Amino acid sequence: MIALGIDPGTRVSGFVIFKKEHRQVHVLDFGIINLPAHRELTDRVGDFFTFFKGKIEQFGVTDIALETPFLGKSALNYLKLGYLRGAVYILTSHYKLSLHEYSPRQVKQAVTGYGGADKEQVARMILKLFPGLAMPKKFDLTDAFGVGMCCVWASAQPIFHK
Amino acid sequence: MIALGIDPGTRVSGFVIFKKEHRQVHVLDFGIINLPAHRELTDRVGDFFTFFKGKIEQFGVTDIALETPFLGKSALNYLKLGYLRGAVYILTSHYKLSLHEYSPRQVKQAVTGYGGADKEQVARMILKLFPGLAMPKKFDLTDAFGVGMCCVWASAQPIFHK
Repeated sequence: MIALGIDPGTRVSGFVIFKKEHRQVHVLDFGIINLPAHRELTDRVGDFFTFFKGKIEQFGVTDIALETPFLGKSALNYLKLGYLRGAVYILTSHYKLSLHEYSPRQVKQAVTGYGGADKEQVARMILKLFPGLAMPKKFDLTDAFGVGMCCVWASAQPIFHK
Repeated sequence: MIALGIDPGTRVSGFVIFKKEHRQVHVLDFGIINLPAHRELTDRVGDFFTFFKGKIEQFGVTDIALETPFLGKSALNYLKLGYLRGAVYILTSHYKLSLHEYSPRQVKQAVTGYGGADKEQVARMILKLFPGLAMPKKFDLTDAFGVGMCCVWASAQPIFHK
């Protein structure tokens, strides 16, 4: 299993690529994509699509993990999230991947053992598991790790290697 | 200008391709795409993407017209519409097209001369302008014609040819 966890955003997206082998989980790649606000939204969605198309081909991704979306205060942001998720759906279909969705509660439960944990606690736990990670200013990266871990952490507790 | 008007839907989508030359508008292609419910949503979004990628390449589309989305009763349908619009955004960016959005009111105004017209009136007017069209059971096709006409009907009143 090569799992790509994504925290999509029209400005900043976080991602991680895990490789699961036996009971071990390796981090193959991770990072942040900035989609600058001065670019047209069409181009930002296009860049997001091209970026992850490249990652899927480069690492032979088999699974993608996303958090379940919810309608927050802004209907427009919800729709824009749909644009990015649409890009993920097209890639899932094209490369015949498995797409997994986890609720925020499942992610928190998987990472911290407590479904009611706050974002800071999730981030702290991720940084404890992956001490090599630079502390992100926002939660885009730790959120991507969280949802990716849900995907690879299904069976026994894996040993993580950077 | 080769304009593609789309009325996107996760089950049924309507589309039309207009060619505008001088003051004349020709219909190059039109139809309905059925995305069967038994297919995974990822594959339906993928099929939608592949279908319009093919049409854009085949006809050398330069412009795409969509109706402005609005959040109706179902937040989930709104999100799913976002998936399809995301596909359109990726194609717009990739082929360097112009993407146009028109409100339902603008479409009604353009087609019937009255922004408060109902869907039936829009459909009747479209069928009058394009007598060769088979009467659709739903409004997917006439809606696609309506939004496509907004795009090509900007300057003088064109003469339509099937």
